[in-house]
This record gives sequence, C-alpha cells and structure tokens, in this order.
Amino acid sequence: MGEPLSIIVVEAERDRALSIVDALRGAGDYDIHVISEPTGLARKIQARSPDIVLIDLENPSRDMLEELALASGPMDRPVAMFVDRSDEGLSAAAIEAGVSAYVVDGMQPQRLKPVLDAAIARFRMFSRMRTELAETKRALEERKVIDRAKGMLIKVRGVSEEEAYALLRKTAMDQGKRVADVAQALVTAAGLLS
Amino acid sequence: MGEPLSIIVVEAERDRALSIVDALRGAGDYDIHVISEPTGLARKIQARSPDIVLIDLENPSRDMLEELALASGPMDRPVAMFVDRSDEGLSAAAIEAGVSAYVVDGMQPQRLKPVLDAAIARFRMFSRMRTELAETKRALEERKVIDRAKGMLIKVRGVSEEEAYALLRKTAMDQGKRVADVAQALVTAAGLLS
Repeated sequence: MGEPLSIIVVEAERDRALSIVDALRGAGDYDIHVISEPTGLARKIQARSPDIVLIDLENPSRDMLEELALASGPMDRPVAMFVDRSDEGLSAAAIEAGVSAYVVDGMQPQRLKPVLDAAIARFRMFSRMRTELAETKRALEERKVIDRAKGMLIKVRGVSEEEAYALLRKTAMDQGKRVADVAQALVTAAGLLS
Repeated sequence: MGEPLSIIVVEAERDRALSIVDALRGAGDYDIHVISEPTGLARKIQARSPDIVLIDLENPSRDMLEELALASGPMDRPVAMFVDRSDEGLSAAAIEAGVSAYVVDGMQPQRLKPVLDAAIARFRMFSRMRTELAETKRALEERKVIDRAKGMLIKVRGVSEEEAYALLRKTAMDQGKRVADVAQALVTAAGLLS
C-alpha cells in the first residue's frame, strides 16, 4: 500500500495516549503524531494535514465534542471519535458535525484498526456524495445564470435564443473563460447599470 | 418519546439472539422481532417495515455480507451490522452497501444502544443528503427539458422565449400538470414524430 497512513491522535491523558500509540503500532503501518493540548487544535491539524484524526474523550460535554469535531476538519479527512460515555443527543451532534466514526465505550486495542478502516470508507462515501451534490448544484446555478444572460441578450439585442447563446460562447472563447462566468459577469453588470 | 422503536434482529444462533434481545430490553423501549432464517429476508423485513435492523454475523463472507445488507433495505431504514471479524475490504463493502453502523468485535450489551443511536443519526444525515441530491438532480433535469421544449416552440412557432414559456405554462395549468411534465411530453412527442 506504499506510504504509511499519517494519523493525529488527540488525547489529553499521557497514559491513554501511549496505549493508543502502542495499539496503532501493532495494528498497521501508521505515521503517528500525538496532540495532548487541544488549544489551537484546528491550526495544528491543518498544518500537518493528516490522513486521519483519532480523538479520544473521556466524558465530553456537547460543546467540547462539537468544538473538537469541527477543529479536526471532518470535511477534509476522516475523523474517528472515541468517548467513554454518550447519549442520543451527543451521538447525533457528533455525527452531524461530520465525524466519520463515533464509538462509545469501545476503545480497545484490537478494535482500533477496524474502526479506522470503517471511518475511512465512510468518509470516502460521504465525500463522493458531497462532491456530486456540489457539482449538481453548481450545474443548476450555472444553467440559471446562463438562462438569465440569454434572456437579457434576447431582449436588449433582439437576437434569437441560439444567437444569444452563440454570443455568450464566442465571448467566453475570446476571453478564455467559461460560458457560465461570462453569463454571470453580464448579469452582474446589468444589475450595476440598472 | 411515544411509540417504542420497532427493531428486527437478524441472528441465526438462538443463544446470541436471546442475549441481544435481553440487552435491548435493558437498554431502551424497543419492539423486538427476531429473524433467525435469512431466506426471504428482504420480503420479511419489507413486510414489517421496522424502524431499524440489527444484523449479527459471526464470520461473514463478502457475498453474504452484501446480500444481507441489501436485503435489510439500508436506503429505507438504519441498518446496524455487527461482525466478529472483518478486514478493510469487508468494512468498505458494508459501508458502500449502505449499512449505517458497522461494528467489528463489539457486540456487548452496554454498547448496543449507543450503536443504534449512532446508526439512526447517521441514517438521517445520509437520507437528508440523498434527498437533497435527488431533488437537485431533478431540478437540473427539469430545467434541461424545459429549455429543450422552449427551443422547439421558438423554432417551430416563431415565438419569443417568454412566449414559449408562457405557452408551456398555460398548457400545464389547463391540464393540471407541472410545466416540466408538459415540456417532457412535448420533447417525447417531437422525438416520436420526427
């Protein structure tokens, strides 16, 4: 599989951190970095840009849980969170915050790798869907803008729909831009000028 | 919270089934039904339409895992799957098949409820995203069809874009249909007639 997976372990307690590192060493080829001080966590994690983040929390409050989940960048990488105790609300909050695996009372050495594997698979599936959604939304928005720009050209210049589109397309090619961007510029300009 | 959550437990072994039922009884207000014979599982589950499905598998093959995951209707309800052993490929296959929680070597009474809670939260998040994606795709497709229909009317009847849309809209209102459906009918008819 080539490069080891880089993993950041967020763990305040030294003994637990050591046992997690031990368990990971035994479970697979990981490049492990431990963060014990959560201050500036988002910045620290961003700087290292790990393949995966493992957060262990003894008895989290909802605020702490959400803060740590968001700081770990759950949209950019899989985040696996282990807690000792939880309730329905906390589970839901963690999952809504984007945590890829949320494990209650299940921090056992032999279970670390399966949880990380599942977190990675879950993250991939979710990312794929998120990308598809973003692309579809963008295509729809672009189509709306192009429609509005065409409508303006038809009205102002008295051209046909096909001619209006050809005009947008030619301008885009001349300027090395996308048709949607030219259409957006036209709509924006018309808004400023009216 | 009103009604108990209806749950189907898929478990071939009688002793394990009993201990799962015991654990669930202790953990919350569940209306529990056990299926021990996986033949016709999809039909049995569909007939009961439970709020959640719990599948316990001792040492699944990939085929068995995928078959059970799909039979449990993971797009219609949360499915939590417990396995004794797994590997990266199996985890990924289960998650891709739509399983909301995939737990390796973690079937312990006190952990059942947190896993079910997480499965429910995960399923809700996923469903919401799936619905949003389906709606956005549909809006985009409808826009495309309406565009094509407008283009045809502009060409054939020599009307303006606005007139073309007004024509589609009027027809839709007269027939008690949606504009997109009238546009689709027009495009289909034109295809048949050309």
